[in-house]
Amino acid sequence: MTYEMVKRLGESIPAGLPNSLRDHGLLVSTATGLYGWGAELEAVYSGLANALSAEVTGAEPIVLHFPPVLPRAVFEKSEYVSSFPHLFGAVHAFRGDEGAHESLERAVTKGEDWGGHTRLTDFVLAPAVCYSVYPLFGGTVLDRGRAVDASGFCFRHEPSTEPGRLVSFRLREFVRIGSPADASTWFEEWNERSSAFVRRLGLKVRVEAASDPFFGTSGQVMAENQREEGMKAEVVVPIGDHPVAVASINLHRDHFGRIFDIQAADGEPAHSACVGFGLERLAFALVDAHGPRTSQWPDEVRESLWGGGPGAPGRGLSGPS
Amino acid sequence: MTYEMVKRLGESIPAGLPNSLRDHGLLVSTATGLYGWGAELEAVYSGLANALSAEVTGAEPIVLHFPPVLPRAVFEKSEYVSSFPHLFGAVHAFRGDEGAHESLERAVTKGEDWGGHTRLTDFVLAPAVCYSVYPLFGGTVLDRGRAVDASGFCFRHEPSTEPGRLVSFRLREFVRIGSPADASTWFEEWNERSSAFVRRLGLKVRVEAASDPFFGTSGQVMAENQREEGMKAEVVVPIGDHPVAVASINLHRDHFGRIFDIQAADGEPAHSACVGFGLERLAFALVDAHGPRTSQWPDEVRESLWGGGPGAPGRGLSGPS
Repeated sequence: MTYEMVKRLGESIPAGLPNSLRDHGLLVSTATGLYGWGAELEAVYSGLANALSAEVTGAEPIVLHFPPVLPRAVFEKSEYVSSFPHLFGAVHAFRGDEGAHESLERAVTKGEDWGGHTRLTDFVLAPAVCYSVYPLFGGTVLDRGRAVDASGFCFRHEPSTEPGRLVSFRLREFVRIGSPADASTWFEEWNERSSAFVRRLGLKVRVEAASDPFFGTSGQVMAENQREEGMKAEVVVPIGDHPVAVASINLHRDHFGRIFDIQAADGEPAHSACVGFGLERLAFALVDAHGPRTSQWPDEVRESLWGGGPGAPGRGLSGPS
Repeated sequence: MTYEMVKRLGESIPAGLPNSLRDHGLLVSTATGLYGWGAELEAVYSGLANALSAEVTGAEPIVLHFPPVLPRAVFEKSEYVSSFPHLFGAVHAFRGDEGAHESLERAVTKGEDWGGHTRLTDFVLAPAVCYSVYPLFGGTVLDRGRAVDASGFCFRHEPSTEPGRLVSFRLREFVRIGSPADASTWFEEWNERSSAFVRRLGLKVRVEAASDPFFGTSGQVMAENQREEGMKAEVVVPIGDHPVAVASINLHRDHFGRIFDIQAADGEPAHSACVGFGLERLAFALVDAHGPRTSQWPDEVRESLWGGGPGAPGRGLSGPS
């Protein structure tokens, strides 16, 4: 019943997503690159969250969840606007009187661009989860390296029908802050572990040297440097015919330590590294590889996600499947 | 370990929140009205989500989750900007060339208001979850009433240290769309059920006639009408000394049916009603009433939230408590 309704609603999904998602009603479309999802996909996200928690337990991380919104002050400090101005979303709000409200309403009704009736607030949309983490350690000296397990919704302004390229999506990041050795060890370790994790989900994995989508001509140079110095890798899996990065491993050197005034035990700026997993991309790849019904996924994949416990979607007995 | 670290990070929480939250490190502050949270509070949110699912199962709802972002086209159609212009958040982005990027960077570096360097996008922050629901039924005739169980993050631009008044928060909404009788029955039913639900969590409940925070002088008239016609009620509980609405029950009559072109079986505009639960406010009230350690909460409350299953935070044996 539930599934059939989501399926019917899902028929509004645009072409460009793999058939398994478009035709099987796992998503409903609300705009280009923006989707709602039903109970079955939510169970996959929960399963992925559980499986990732199990991966990082040994590091005894500080577990933190963040809202989809980041303080503008943190964003400005982060230098994101220098590197990725084309991707951020800033929150604007209306702060006028009743006269100004009438003008705003008129502009909306006429279908005009009403952006000028609003003003920048103290908030931006979080472009990544780890930007919420660094300021918490600002102005401190770390006696030893710290691991943080951070979750939240992120936003990137790149509306697209490309599979897995969403404007609003969940990111799970394991962040390490400490000495240069702490960070580089984390980077090396998660290069291995993240691809092994994705492979255990029954996905065809390729690990690639990668670079961030830096803006403009000077950005091209930064991207080349990043790639040459081996500071970013991506775990790439197929969704339909498209190779899609489902995880990225990033070495920041002392970039965030400097910016947010975090010192390692020796008084030098702390180094950091993080690995980020895109939950929607992983879920879409799983559906593409194993089919739209989680009840029919391979045992070992179900075991990884739900451990066979009561949270597992049933094998055709009940629930959304 | 995890708990102690979150506690230390949590010391940056501003005054104004109840001591139980401020002092016990359940939250970390990122800005006024904006908080990250640790594993223990996340377990409470999960427990509340489970308990609410159990409440609505009988109605066989369509289960849908939505991202924190809403298409601007839906927002414009919803008439939100007429009623609550002071609360919405619109997403702006930068779309310039390298020269424009230099100007933007300069404005950010100088601490100027850089809002004018960005333009309105096709996205706004979701002010409520049910706005994502109505358009899915747009242009249809409902052969019978529909129930939707909808979840997501919402944004309201009212930064505050008032307990439970967050700028970014999770809303769980049970929406009914159908005939006038479908909607009014839902409204009456959830007037009872939502307060009974909150009472079973061991909270001191008061149900009050309420009105929405409509903008301006004409808004005052709308609020008075809404209250007189009994179209909104709130379930209010104490957090510290503050009475806080943790649930609201709303009768929309044919407002959304008209706007989004949804017809009831008789061809008339569909009526709708919804009940919304604020998960953060419920969690904060629980901590305020039962203390900061979920392991020490009353058995019946733990049973409601976690059913005593493996998802339940341990009684001091393991996990975050």
